[in-house]
Amino acid sequence: MNHYQFGVDYYPEHWPKERWATDARMMREMGIQIVRMAEFSWAKFEPSEGAFRFEDLDEAIDILGREGIDVILGTPSAAPPAWIVERDPDIQPLDWTMRRRHFGGRHHDCQSHPVYRAHIKRYVTAFAAHYADNPHVVGWQVDNELGNSHGDLCFCEHCEARFRAWLKQKYVTIDELNRAWGTAFWSQGYASFDQVHAPRVTVTGLNPSQDLDWKRFTSNLICEFHQFQADILRAHAPGKFITHNLMGFCSKPSYYDLGKQLDFASHDQYPGGHFHARHDEYRADWHAAELDFIRAVKQKSFWIMEQQSGITGWEILGRAPKPGQIPLWAMQCVAHGADTIVFFRWRSCAMGTEQYWHGILPHNGVPGRYHREISAFMKKYAPLLKELNGSVPKAEMAILRSYDQERAFDIQPHHPQHRYIQHLATYYKAFHRANVPVDFVGEEHDFTPYKVLIAPLQFLMTPEHAAKLRAYVERGGTLVLTWRSGVKDGTNLCHTEGALPCLVDDLCGVALAEYDCLRDTTGLVHWDGVDYPCDIWCDVLETTTAEPIAVYAHEFYAGSPAITRNRYGKGTVYYVGTQMAPELADRFACELCADAGIKPLLVTPHGVEVTHRVVDGKRYLFLLNHLETSQRVDVPASWRTWDDADWSGELSELGVQVFVEE
Amino acid sequence: MNHYQFGVDYYPEHWPKERWATDARMMREMGIQIVRMAEFSWAKFEPSEGAFRFEDLDEAIDILGREGIDVILGTPSAAPPAWIVERDPDIQPLDWTMRRRHFGGRHHDCQSHPVYRAHIKRYVTAFAAHYADNPHVVGWQVDNELGNSHGDLCFCEHCEARFRAWLKQKYVTIDELNRAWGTAFWSQGYASFDQVHAPRVTVTGLNPSQDLDWKRFTSNLICEFHQFQADILRAHAPGKFITHNLMGFCSKPSYYDLGKQLDFASHDQYPGGHFHARHDEYRADWHAAELDFIRAVKQKSFWIMEQQSGITGWEILGRAPKPGQIPLWAMQCVAHGADTIVFFRWRSCAMGTEQYWHGILPHNGVPGRYHREISAFMKKYAPLLKELNGSVPKAEMAILRSYDQERAFDIQPHHPQHRYIQHLATYYKAFHRANVPVDFVGEEHDFTPYKVLIAPLQFLMTPEHAAKLRAYVERGGTLVLTWRSGVKDGTNLCHTEGALPCLVDDLCGVALAEYDCLRDTTGLVHWDGVDYPCDIWCDVLETTTAEPIAVYAHEFYAGSPAITRNRYGKGTVYYVGTQMAPELADRFACELCADAGIKPLLVTPHGVEVTHRVVDGKRYLFLLNHLETSQRVDVPASWRTWDDADWSGELSELGVQVFVEE
Amino acid sequence: MNHYQFGVDYYPEHWPKERWATDARMMREMGIQIVRMAEFSWAKFEPSEGAFRFEDLDEAIDILGREGIDVILGTPSAAPPAWIVERDPDIQPLDWTMRRRHFGGRHHDCQSHPVYRAHIKRYVTAFAAHYADNPHVVGWQVDNELGNSHGDLCFCEHCEARFRAWLKQKYVTIDELNRAWGTAFWSQGYASFDQVHAPRVTVTGLNPSQDLDWKRFTSNLICEFHQFQADILRAHAPGKFITHNLMGFCSKPSYYDLGKQLDFASHDQYPGGHFHARHDEYRADWHAAELDFIRAVKQKSFWIMEQQSGITGWEILGRAPKPGQIPLWAMQCVAHGADTIVFFRWRSCAMGTEQYWHGILPHNGVPGRYHREISAFMKKYAPLLKELNGSVPKAEMAILRSYDQERAFDIQPHHPQHRYIQHLATYYKAFHRANVPVDFVGEEHDFTPYKVLIAPLQFLMTPEHAAKLRAYVERGGTLVLTWRSGVKDGTNLCHTEGALPCLVDDLCGVALAEYDCLRDTTGLVHWDGVDYPCDIWCDVLETTTAEPIAVYAHEFYAGSPAITRNRYGKGTVYYVGTQMAPELADRFACELCADAGIKPLLVTPHGVEVTHRVVDGKRYLFLLNHLETSQRVDVPASWRTWDDADWSGELSELGVQVFVEE
Repeated sequence: MNHYQFGVDYYPEHWPKERWATDARMMREMGIQIVRMAEFSWAKFEPSEGAFRFEDLDEAIDILGREGIDVILGTPSAAPPAWIVERDPDIQPLDWTMRRRHFGGRHHDCQSHPVYRAHIKRYVTAFAAHYADNPHVVGWQVDNELGNSHGDLCFCEHCEARFRAWLKQKYVTIDELNRAWGTAFWSQGYASFDQVHAPRVTVTGLNPSQDLDWKRFTSNLICEFHQFQADILRAHAPGKFITHNLMGFCSKPSYYDLGKQLDFASHDQYPGGHFHARHDEYRADWHAAELDFIRAVKQKSFWIMEQQSGITGWEILGRAPKPGQIPLWAMQCVAHGADTIVFFRWRSCAMGTEQYWHGILPHNGVPGRYHREISAFMKKYAPLLKELNGSVPKAEMAILRSYDQERAFDIQPHHPQHRYIQHLATYYKAFHRANVPVDFVGEEHDFTPYKVLIAPLQFLMTPEHAAKLRAYVERGGTLVLTWRSGVKDGTNLCHTEGALPCLVDDLCGVALAEYDCLRDTTGLVHWDGVDYPCDIWCDVLETTTAEPIAVYAHEFYAGSPAITRNRYGKGTVYYVGTQMAPELADRFACELCADAGIKPLLVTPHGVEVTHRVVDGKRYLFLLNHLETSQRVDVPASWRTWDDADWSGELSELGVQVFVEE
Repeated sequence: MNHYQFGVDYYPEHWPKERWATDARMMREMGIQIVRMAEFSWAKFEPSEGAFRFEDLDEAIDILGREGIDVILGTPSAAPPAWIVERDPDIQPLDWTMRRRHFGGRHHDCQSHPVYRAHIKRYVTAFAAHYADNPHVVGWQVDNELGNSHGDLCFCEHCEARFRAWLKQKYVTIDELNRAWGTAFWSQGYASFDQVHAPRVTVTGLNPSQDLDWKRFTSNLICEFHQFQADILRAHAPGKFITHNLMGFCSKPSYYDLGKQLDFASHDQYPGGHFHARHDEYRADWHAAELDFIRAVKQKSFWIMEQQSGITGWEILGRAPKPGQIPLWAMQCVAHGADTIVFFRWRSCAMGTEQYWHGILPHNGVPGRYHREISAFMKKYAPLLKELNGSVPKAEMAILRSYDQERAFDIQPHHPQHRYIQHLATYYKAFHRANVPVDFVGEEHDFTPYKVLIAPLQFLMTPEHAAKLRAYVERGGTLVLTWRSGVKDGTNLCHTEGALPCLVDDLCGVALAEYDCLRDTTGLVHWDGVDYPCDIWCDVLETTTAEPIAVYAHEFYAGSPAITRNRYGKGTVYYVGTQMAPELADRFACELCADAGIKPLLVTPHGVEVTHRVVDGKRYLFLLNHLETSQRVDVPASWRTWDDADWSGELSELGVQVFVEE
Repeated sequence: MNHYQFGVDYYPEHWPKERWATDARMMREMGIQIVRMAEFSWAKFEPSEGAFRFEDLDEAIDILGREGIDVILGTPSAAPPAWIVERDPDIQPLDWTMRRRHFGGRHHDCQSHPVYRAHIKRYVTAFAAHYADNPHVVGWQVDNELGNSHGDLCFCEHCEARFRAWLKQKYVTIDELNRAWGTAFWSQGYASFDQVHAPRVTVTGLNPSQDLDWKRFTSNLICEFHQFQADILRAHAPGKFITHNLMGFCSKPSYYDLGKQLDFASHDQYPGGHFHARHDEYRADWHAAELDFIRAVKQKSFWIMEQQSGITGWEILGRAPKPGQIPLWAMQCVAHGADTIVFFRWRSCAMGTEQYWHGILPHNGVPGRYHREISAFMKKYAPLLKELNGSVPKAEMAILRSYDQERAFDIQPHHPQHRYIQHLATYYKAFHRANVPVDFVGEEHDFTPYKVLIAPLQFLMTPEHAAKLRAYVERGGTLVLTWRSGVKDGTNLCHTEGALPCLVDDLCGVALAEYDCLRDTTGLVHWDGVDYPCDIWCDVLETTTAEPIAVYAHEFYAGSPAITRNRYGKGTVYYVGTQMAPELADRFACELCADAGIKPLLVTPHGVEVTHRVVDGKRYLFLLNHLETSQRVDVPASWRTWDDADWSGELSELGVQVFVEE
């Protein structure tokens, strides 16, 4: 049972000790019940080898504990201290160009390096043992945002050695590796595993099979790095939970794999759009997708471990959150299944890279607007979060999000603008606009609870995966496959037998005649008298048993099917041959839902999101207005406001209203 | 005598042995007479040092031979195998930043490295000896696309040592090098050749004379690398031809120099526009130019060694060729002087970097549209190719394409948008639009067969070259020189005496008053009452004996001559002081042809190309419609269709029609 | 007393000795009185260690001397010769990525390297001694454009060792460094100075405090490198002046610091806009600002050591100066306080990187338009320059230009388009448009002579600096502060107490409620019924004692003050919370001048600049027309033309007119 609704990320080591009691009191007054600490404080707690100094942290925990606040502690492996680096500079990672990346930021470590592993083992063992019996320390976080800001990991000899061992375990013989990697091309045959390297800088070209295995290996290494620490923590400090602050669609490690080691998933949510994001785009649907995906990691409710509480940025800053926006963002997390919201951070940091990654309090520690808004939010909604605890949205539709397919398209995107996740978003956003709840699933998950499974870009198609999809359809599921499906096998070699989409062509009732990459141009799809734009790619379909439901209206293949439907077994399979523009995706979503018998939660104007969470049959409905103008929304008579407020039918700008239906 | 009209590039090592006989039969049925093989198969044929295993290749050749198909074999030096790299990793090249480029793609070799040379010598000697008496093996290709994808060669100590030796041979004394390189500037004087390096990364600035010699040296090294292997092949397997798959305007090695070693030139033609090309541009004229240039390499007809037969691309794909487009592209090659068309490749490769560089057959080996179109093309036109064999287009005009001038402008382009080859294309395209046949020539070639010689951008001007141009004009030739001519001497130092264009100012009858780089702006040229755009650069001319035929209409030099004509000896010299927009180039081409008495082959609408090849006085005329709409073309009554088809006066979209005139 | 009005930069070593007498005669005839030489000629004068060969230079000086021309000699440390580099290749610098930058351009030296220092000491000592008694050698220049083209200096072990020593001297203890750098963040605490490095390439993020100190250190290193040579010159050749060719707003070394070592400042002025500059922008105001800034270096009149005399460029060229433009540019220098104009260069160089950085004479040495225009200019204005010698423009307003603030914003610009110098230019240009003379000052300078001090972006605010600003206001000054002031302390840590702008909030009479980065958007400021655009940033002000004079008209803070005025002591403080568009800056400048009692020199149409220099109460007024159309200008009756020309009231295109008022 989760006892926490609200928390905050806190760095007592950044502030004078005299301030700590004030901070703790202010937190308690605000409604904070838990803080995360210590994930970047190795140098303070072990200033030289084995000389552990946890006294300050003990004191901070004690001060917080006296205010009734519990603690999650992070292991500090994302930032080894200078004294370690000085002794062993080669624990600093080598990037793809074999250039050393140095101390001075964070993540300046090689996760393979045996010397670094030994340092971690010593620290984490001592850390776990020290806090094993501290009743205020309730959980752990290993490292920080694993996979973030790590370039493409390290290319040092230790990483290559691990890669070779991983390959040996996978392929057993070098002949099998040669076959799986297609090394007959360009004379790349290996006589032994010793000749195999990480995919380093070449004159031109890379082997896509080698590259895919490298990406799988690096994901695996990150997970194993987490396991290495989690094992120590569980051994020396049993009875505490372990979670990790994941980062939405970050694709470095497989979160499905990492999730297996966690008691529950956590997520860092910064909708303000720092760094490269455009600030004039509507992104509420994207943030919703990330939350729905995080829920998929453990297929249950989750925490937000870092929730934006002010302006974000490093050298370049994002925009100031508007009045009401921080509560809105926090409520969107709740609306998608967050049980606990931990705000990042308590007070804007005066030092270092993140001086402008603002906290609830400004640099001078005097509460301002952000504090006011967040306090009010906590006070009002803490009871709601208690009621919702452990519940999730209930979805009849799932989108298959595959790390392997994403890796394969990262390696060979085909079209300069094609991105795997953006393609998924085409579908997600259409259902989001329609207020149809969606789950994400991985290849290993059970598809059968869902009426509809959207399985986009099934580029790599193994017999096992094809069989699973087939079984899902046979027993009545509606499956949506999209272009470039069935092209390759599990090691990124092209299938050399059968018709595209290979292994599932009969399931789809189509065979590919051709395909066309829409470089520097766009296309048209004709459906029921309307021409809709499409782009990126066109699979030119020939139907065998399927019926065309839309056709191309451009190029030499005008009139050929672009979207088809095939009744198969008790189920149905759609094949979408092109990248749909939003209007076409909406048309398709409408058709699909009607055919599969799925109803939206509510029809709302653009910018108003509706979600629900279900607690023992009682539905909580969330209306979230992401626009800066108020909007009229008609709700069913059966919905009553959760806070017993009068419902005017108008949702204020950036406003939130929760309803209950029993 | 060339016995082959059609061939295909084939990689039996990529496919199961059981398939080979099927492939050979299908090839024969299609009309294939020759295949190129083995240029990327070192690891298969020599899996460890000296352990040659040519059995599989023998078998493939035998299977093909039984179908009456002959073979060209490539030496595999573009891809040394892993076991060589493992033993001598420093045969992998160092790029300009001294970063090692690794195994994993292709061209991961230093062409200077003595260890690598020894490996090549062993392999090529055995290879040549093994196939010396095989009657089906009729020719060789050394390496693959030499100069392609090689960054700027290698900067290792072996390359620098060769560079020093090359310089020593050229300059004999260090004083002469110091003079030729102008090392008085920025204190760059050398006391000995040992102090000289390749042009490496500096803080700022490079010596343009050093850079020019480096570029000449790297061209020379590539040619010497080819010679090294050609010598072995000719010694151990006499009586077979040697050709090389050149790449149009690729400027790394001088194809004039490389061509001297070849029995005939070959070319790789991919008009579909892979990689960086825009797919919405008209490029038929550019492809025509490349073909005309390849003809210049040996000044005779040539082969296409790789002819596009499907979608091209690596990580990013090009567009699907439209129906009819592959035959059109192949016929364009024939129309410009190709005797033999070898399609690349037989079947789309399932492995490695080039999985999407599509072949005649798709991955699954089942013939589709590309196979259908190419088969029909071969069947119809094989007799035509036999008739044309060895003939060439006949041109009265030549464009001087100089590697040295291109190198000098690569080093100092003056204007951000200026590219030497694009400047040549200004002229080529104007004549192409007018259907005036054009040859390319090099500095060493004989100019006298041509009524007109376009010699653009004669930036580097030596006394010898000036004298050759002068003699050409004196005896009646019409010479066109363009801006920035006569600025520098042969080692990239500025001329310090006389008026610009130095050494040829009297020939042109002009002296430069000034010049102006049109940075961030454009200009105007006034000619007979019309203002035409110009850009990039303006030489501001003062006439001595020339007559102005067009003047500038912009800036403080408005009214000064922009284009002049000078009668000199029995000939005429035009000087064009600026980069002409297409309309101005057309106006100029028209003037020039009228003045020189050159007539177009035919007047056609935009997109319809006309060329001819002449066989013993009999003219074959090619009409090629590069647009996707049919077009009306009036042809003279004396032309009859080669295939005795009725000529409707309409050329279908992407259509081809061959005529004969006797 | 300065005896020189006009000079030229000359490289006799680039030309045959036989030409030298001709050059000297032509110079004298033109009006040249002084030449700068030898700053890039180490290899010639010391071809091997200790083997000095100054004979040629002696001869050149002698030839010039016989024409009455004096000489400034440069030390050649910007280009160590090949023989030094061959022996000690590690004197070549390492860039940020630890990549060696090689011989072949210039500045290929590490200024810290003890071996290189020894070479310099030997050369400069001999050089100084040799010319100590030469009456024609009147001054020295150390190196060339120090700080130019030096990447970010060198990151070698010697530079890091000097950095550590510099830090040790500054912070004494490692604890103090840890505090000053905020190393508590991301576990960056150091146990000893030995663990500290230059800010090298990290995986992600840098410490802004470390980065600021590194930038300060590199400035200091450059100044110390200059001092090292200046000390030798002064010791061995006393009685000669030392100056340096500075580069306007180049920010690598602090010119205030460097200036302390100089007898007078010099500047290289190339208004033609080489390299990255756009050629279609109006930049006369920017060039004016650079000149006014150079005057601030020693707070007195200055030299131009390199004045553009033709087309500039390296690989890419700039535009040809238009007729009259070179004299106009030279006169603009005089108008802002230049006493002497040395043109760069005598003759266009035929060799090396700078072949197209054109001189007065073209490559062939035959005088053309540039020579004609410059000759006429010298002849006409030599008497004027004599009269003006030592005088300066008189300004009632100053802009504070701070190297430290610029460094801090280079490290953290906040907004992608924000540049410190561009922000200063917002103010400078408004006053330039209004023809209000402006001085620049540094933090150390005396502010009290000025009615108004514009102190933009006072991001780093120390108690000492706050006190100085306060004192200035208290005694009657008008101070203008702008956004992001008072955010940080002297080591780039955020202030953690008080209201923003910290330490000066009461002086301004405001406290910041919030701020907003205008990423991907713009804003509006409302002032007296008009809405003006603003962008980049908004400080949202709350007034305590100030009065709002303009408010925001966008976002949730619409209606909040954007610009405020506070009467404090005898003075006034403005706070401008946003980046003003030009129209708003003009409105503000108008208000400010009216309030402070500052009058423009004259009202002129756009493109006509007016400045003055005051000699013993006599005013010289310069009218400069930077546009290519003539313009009407009304001048007061009290102004008479300096050359007694009739004043038509019309200033010709690119024209100049000097007036006198007594």
